[in-house]
Amino acid sequence: MDTKRKELVEELMQRQRLAALLFWRPDELVMMLGYMPLWGVSVLFYPAEGQAVLFVPELEPEDILPAGIEVRKYPWGVLDGRDPWVVLYKAIRDELAKRSPGGGRVSFIRNIGGSAPCRMSGEQPPLPPDLAEQLERVSDAGWSDAGGELAGLYEQKTATDVAGLEKTHRIAAHAVEVFYREVEKGHTEALLAAQVESAVQEASGGPGISFAKAWPMVQSGRNSADAGKFNRSTNKVIQSGELVVLEMGLCVEGYWADITRTAVAGEATDLHRRMYDAVIGAQRAAYGLLRPGVAMREVDKAARDYIRDAGFGGYFPHGLGHQTGFRYHDPGDTLSPFSTGVLREGMVVTVEPGIYGEALGGGLRIEDNVLITAEGYRILSESHRELKGKNHGN
Amino acid sequence: MDTKRKELVEELMQRQRLAALLFWRPDELVMMLGYMPLWGVSVLFYPAEGQAVLFVPELEPEDILPAGIEVRKYPWGVLDGRDPWVVLYKAIRDELAKRSPGGGRVSFIRNIGGSAPCRMSGEQPPLPPDLAEQLERVSDAGWSDAGGELAGLYEQKTATDVAGLEKTHRIAAHAVEVFYREVEKGHTEALLAAQVESAVQEASGGPGISFAKAWPMVQSGRNSADAGKFNRSTNKVIQSGELVVLEMGLCVEGYWADITRTAVAGEATDLHRRMYDAVIGAQRAAYGLLRPGVAMREVDKAARDYIRDAGFGGYFPHGLGHQTGFRYHDPGDTLSPFSTGVLREGMVVTVEPGIYGEALGGGLRIEDNVLITAEGYRILSESHRELKGKNHGN
Repeated sequence: MDTKRKELVEELMQRQRLAALLFWRPDELVMMLGYMPLWGVSVLFYPAEGQAVLFVPELEPEDILPAGIEVRKYPWGVLDGRDPWVVLYKAIRDELAKRSPGGGRVSFIRNIGGSAPCRMSGEQPPLPPDLAEQLERVSDAGWSDAGGELAGLYEQKTATDVAGLEKTHRIAAHAVEVFYREVEKGHTEALLAAQVESAVQEASGGPGISFAKAWPMVQSGRNSADAGKFNRSTNKVIQSGELVVLEMGLCVEGYWADITRTAVAGEATDLHRRMYDAVIGAQRAAYGLLRPGVAMREVDKAARDYIRDAGFGGYFPHGLGHQTGFRYHDPGDTLSPFSTGVLREGMVVTVEPGIYGEALGGGLRIEDNVLITAEGYRILSESHRELKGKNHGN
Repeated sequence: MDTKRKELVEELMQRQRLAALLFWRPDELVMMLGYMPLWGVSVLFYPAEGQAVLFVPELEPEDILPAGIEVRKYPWGVLDGRDPWVVLYKAIRDELAKRSPGGGRVSFIRNIGGSAPCRMSGEQPPLPPDLAEQLERVSDAGWSDAGGELAGLYEQKTATDVAGLEKTHRIAAHAVEVFYREVEKGHTEALLAAQVESAVQEASGGPGISFAKAWPMVQSGRNSADAGKFNRSTNKVIQSGELVVLEMGLCVEGYWADITRTAVAGEATDLHRRMYDAVIGAQRAAYGLLRPGVAMREVDKAARDYIRDAGFGGYFPHGLGHQTGFRYHDPGDTLSPFSTGVLREGMVVTVEPGIYGEALGGGLRIEDNVLITAEGYRILSESHRELKGKNHGN
């Protein structure tokens, strides 16, 4: 477990006089242990006194389990008619009683707007409906709301998290290359998205990578005019002269990137270049403000003003960015006109200005992921982002 | 909306004296309207009196909205600082007051073990944590628990649902062909999975298909011995002479298939054939019992006994099947030794016997999806399921 994360969590427990914290969402387990569960029914018991215990189902693969922590199996998925949850709740209760004989309060995040998917991302984990209520009862002293501060753990990426994110962004860069290589070839949007998706999936099982999956969406020509409202792919064939927007969430080992690139298939028009320059300029204007202590709405404003001054004021309908890393969209304050948040060291935010309009014949967005550092910022998503691919003319 | 579905829902409301039902989970909206939401924040208001109203976010694509129902936008995703949910709750409250001036109780499924993903399957929809509590309050008469009976709607697929499932299974059959075509080529598990995934994604935007996505996982050789416990792909290269298991959930327009095929790369051994014959025989034994009124645990028993009699008694560690169609795994009774359920017309169940063991050098499972009909059953997943591909010898 990352030293900084350990320190943050233990300080929180001390400040709030908690006997233990519980974590079970896939994104929480990645944050705490760098462990992305397969089934999504693992629970971390993290006590103030003594060592933590990770409860995993009998069916969890051994090779994805984290090192340096006691792992205990419980009989989820075993065909013996027992209720595995009853076994689990009792085991946690017993652990807590051992560590805090006089009793003590537990806390966990009761609700945080869903969660990242587990490795089995085709469905939500089959958690029992009363999980939170049952976990409250593992302590006679009950549950304590550590809500805001506990959720704040998402907003601080450690050195371990940054290393995880760098791995994700290396694969993202490869996927972006595939996008630029294939964008001129007259594919449908869906086929181009499939090629990008496949490029990421192929990395699964590569060196140090047991899970890689992407959710790419491609919108071209008139469809790209909608890319400020939604993203998805259709069977529309990509034509020469069109803007082509790739929006992509991708997850590698539990760490997420959220990337957008826009290419032109064929020749870019003057309007395309003006739109591109406005968006890149807006990104630079935002970067100029990125450092700890700056109000997040000021960053949005800098980008928004730049786009307005470039003559595209009515064409940027969404916020400038949001936090990311443990999910496609992390919880926490956003870069938007209505934000009350302040940048802090360790945050990872997207910076994603866009210009879209039927009147413009399409839309264009560039989205990068940026780490806030003590001195300012560092772009994590350093891949090609020109209108034209590196080896495909200009 | 399907006539049968309408009838089932309206009978339920009458029996339980409800003024309205509310639905918001992606799988519920598919069941009610054949509509798979993009963002996952749409809500269906279905009153006992008068016409239903579907509330969708401003940002929802027009072309995926269902026909034949009033659609009303609410300002989710619009950058104006308003709380879209407050607008939505009030709109539902006003509709209810119009239809039931004297007041009346509403119901919805409070919890049903998660949901299927929306089109943006990389994360759960950003629903507010107190959604259920707020929806309770749209009626002064409060919420009424229609739980079991309401959840029972999942267990009855209508003609419309069957047509949707047939479309999904046509694409599944294509994906299975890609699997058999590529299994001999010395790929890694992850690359073979990527090719299958890509074949499904390419169908997105095809005729009548606006969404297609697959979650394929490939396990080969020694890894296939684990396929009774979990599924995932690794970077292991598939070798000649190995068993290769493809497990795949796939979703087309909101309708799910859950398929397993096992191929042999190269020559099958006698043991492989014995395992295969036992699994196919177990499926046939189960099929012999499939008709309305039969206890689900008896179906499991027939397959389990067959496998035991074939000499593989200790190697079938999981239940025979579960319901599917609106999700990868639908809620409801399962085919297992501990099931108390009874087969009913309109159910769709998986039939997925498997044999796995280190001692056997690997694992093998065949999984099909079967509709229970008035007379018996119909297999929906009629694609190739031999150990060897059609055009690849043997």
